[in-house]
Amino acid sequence: MSIQIRKFDSTHPDFKQQLADVLAFEASEDEAIDRAVLRILEDVKKRGDVAVLEYTKQFDHVSADSLQALEIKSDDLQAALAQLSPVRRAALQTAADRVRVYHERQKAEIGSHGFSYTETDGTILGQKVTPLDRVGIYVPGGKAAYPSSVLMNAIPAKVAGVQEVIMVVPTPNGVQNELVLAAAAMSGVDRVFTIGGAQAVAALAYGTATIPQVDKIVGPGNAYVAAAKRRVFGTVGIDMIAGPSEILVICDGTTDPDWIAMDLFSQAEHDELAQSILICPDAAYLEAVAASINRQLDAMPRKEVIATSLTNRGAMIKVRDMDEACEIANLIAAEHLEISTENPQQWADKIRHAGAMFLGRFSSESLGDYCAGPNHVLPTSRTARFSSPLGVYDFQKRSSMLQVSEGGAHTLGQVAAELAYGEGLQAHARSAEYRFKK
Amino acid sequence: MSIQIRKFDSTHPDFKQQLADVLAFEASEDEAIDRAVLRILEDVKKRGDVAVLEYTKQFDHVSADSLQALEIKSDDLQAALAQLSPVRRAALQTAADRVRVYHERQKAEIGSHGFSYTETDGTILGQKVTPLDRVGIYVPGGKAAYPSSVLMNAIPAKVAGVQEVIMVVPTPNGVQNELVLAAAAMSGVDRVFTIGGAQAVAALAYGTATIPQVDKIVGPGNAYVAAAKRRVFGTVGIDMIAGPSEILVICDGTTDPDWIAMDLFSQAEHDELAQSILICPDAAYLEAVAASINRQLDAMPRKEVIATSLTNRGAMIKVRDMDEACEIANLIAAEHLEISTENPQQWADKIRHAGAMFLGRFSSESLGDYCAGPNHVLPTSRTARFSSPLGVYDFQKRSSMLQVSEGGAHTLGQVAAELAYGEGLQAHARSAEYRFKK
Repeated sequence: MSIQIRKFDSTHPDFKQQLADVLAFEASEDEAIDRAVLRILEDVKKRGDVAVLEYTKQFDHVSADSLQALEIKSDDLQAALAQLSPVRRAALQTAADRVRVYHERQKAEIGSHGFSYTETDGTILGQKVTPLDRVGIYVPGGKAAYPSSVLMNAIPAKVAGVQEVIMVVPTPNGVQNELVLAAAAMSGVDRVFTIGGAQAVAALAYGTATIPQVDKIVGPGNAYVAAAKRRVFGTVGIDMIAGPSEILVICDGTTDPDWIAMDLFSQAEHDELAQSILICPDAAYLEAVAASINRQLDAMPRKEVIATSLTNRGAMIKVRDMDEACEIANLIAAEHLEISTENPQQWADKIRHAGAMFLGRFSSESLGDYCAGPNHVLPTSRTARFSSPLGVYDFQKRSSMLQVSEGGAHTLGQVAAELAYGEGLQAHARSAEYRFKK
Repeated sequence: MSIQIRKFDSTHPDFKQQLADVLAFEASEDEAIDRAVLRILEDVKKRGDVAVLEYTKQFDHVSADSLQALEIKSDDLQAALAQLSPVRRAALQTAADRVRVYHERQKAEIGSHGFSYTETDGTILGQKVTPLDRVGIYVPGGKAAYPSSVLMNAIPAKVAGVQEVIMVVPTPNGVQNELVLAAAAMSGVDRVFTIGGAQAVAALAYGTATIPQVDKIVGPGNAYVAAAKRRVFGTVGIDMIAGPSEILVICDGTTDPDWIAMDLFSQAEHDELAQSILICPDAAYLEAVAASINRQLDAMPRKEVIATSLTNRGAMIKVRDMDEACEIANLIAAEHLEISTENPQQWADKIRHAGAMFLGRFSSESLGDYCAGPNHVLPTSRTARFSSPLGVYDFQKRSSMLQVSEGGAHTLGQVAAELAYGEGLQAHARSAEYRFKK
């Protein structure tokens, strides 16, 4: 099997447009899916448990007399954990522990205790930080069921202090994923229901007799789940709707080409729409990686997916120098950015936009996917320009605190009244004036 | 003019349902508006400046030869500031200064420098925090044009370190709001264009020849603007789509009833859909406030709006005690919560969900609207359960940083490979293994 990856040169007059074209990705919004989802949401809102049971029978071919019967009890989660091989259990435990340590560090660094300060007249201003009460985690069934995803979504919520984490995971034809259940047990998930699709999103968003309403829903899902999350946003919080996964590798030409080829594969194997891009100032090195790709491809079990992804969405970009590589990386704002160079920090300092940066040749992206500690839920499709990795901050919210003294009410009241009259809001002005004129 | 506000008693068997009914608010999503907006967005995306000019002529009755002609230059912004009366200018400056001080304090408290820690094998993990590059602020034209809103949106962005803040504000029939322009000058807005509606949102989201693409759009707008923001979300970030404004007052019955009545008015005067609710354990006090409302209403210039809002959406709730008042406040999760009591901190400690809390009888909500310092852009419609006031954090984003040492690649690589094989992702496993097996 031999493939041809797109090659660009930054000195080409059309380079900017070529780059824009290869990055372009339109999330397909299917009207039929959206309408079907809307119907399911409204039905579950109205009929609750009964509707969820009907859709579960229809879509997952799982029948039950009650939604209670679809809850997996704590003992069964623990049993799934106990059944893991010792090696796999140890690996999962290491990953969970490291993810927890990283997010505890994050919690300590982001001002989780809030703040307040007192002004000379005794007025106190500040902000209070509280965790969300209850969070829902969607975990896909079938081929995309990743235990690492359970850890990455559940642990930050528990570290933030969320009292109740409710996981939903469909079990098409009744087939359970034991690794996923083990991960749920390990990461402190409180309750698990074997439901999925738009009906599970609806149950979490509106609540039913059996499933309590949550405050936020996180986790990946198919087009129906994504459409349902978009629709319930506002009733509950949601995380970002993720696009295809991406890796951008900036290399100075000193890393073993086989390593870089495999890093590009590791993104491409996710799915046909995944995007792998390599930037380097050394044309010969780009050729060496291209050769390595064709040499290594046949040994990959998921070679068809990799070949499609690299051919349709991959690219290699020859740049003038590493500074230009960093400029282009800021334009691309990749989900994963590997800086596979000597002295990587100097280049990382120039990067403003990336979901996660992997510095130096030993930092393969896959370490971040599983166990290094930082979250693997990252902004895709250039949204790293304005959004962040999933974190403890996604499971906290802030309330402003104002305690105005009698003196403060006098000085601030005059200012507020002046501006309120300027905006034509007399009750605002009078409300302020009562505190110092009466 | 005499009105009747709904009265509830928490001991009534149907109280929970009564409360749910009064809180229920369905944001109307108008299909016709959404379709019109979609057409405008696609047109501006394709035809850029020309399309924006055409829509501006059509909707605002403003003709110009070029979009450049619709930019208000810095000198004109400064002139608007210079023309303010000294009293109004001083009030606006006090407000701007206090908002800046509060948000600088916030920036210092939320870990804006990021963090990193080094493990025993030399692996470095952490997070980098960067401001957004460029932000768009939407400011409505006409009656809802509030200079305070310019301060509250622009100042946190500048404090966060956003390099370029671009404001759009429609000028229907060419009428400019000088207070809004003065507020833009004062809060450090970099560029101002007199365009509005879905066409302005599109120009900011996609960029045109004249207007650079931004990374996030914030600020309030009408139904077309809200629909446009929803549609461009993902291409750029957006703030929350705000619902009607709300105030919840918890009172122990010791505050002058006239003050509380005016506080309820100050929310109700915003618009007919605004919601004002008073909770108190003292039935006689509720009657006193109801009497004050009817006594004071006729003097209010906006009495029609206030009467409609209080009649249709207002409520007074008699509770058993202050603890129950706090429980109900957590259910309501109000945008603004006044705790008008003796020793308010004891009750504030029990509140988990509120956009902003105003403690003590001197903390009228209007002080927070204009000049106390905390942001007046707050979560509405119970979204305080999962979201926060607009803040510096909305104009920053985080990137995970991983620099794995050779030793770390060995220990972490084994864990990652084990889990990757478990998930059937062989390229992930091989990519990790290359770093310690070769």
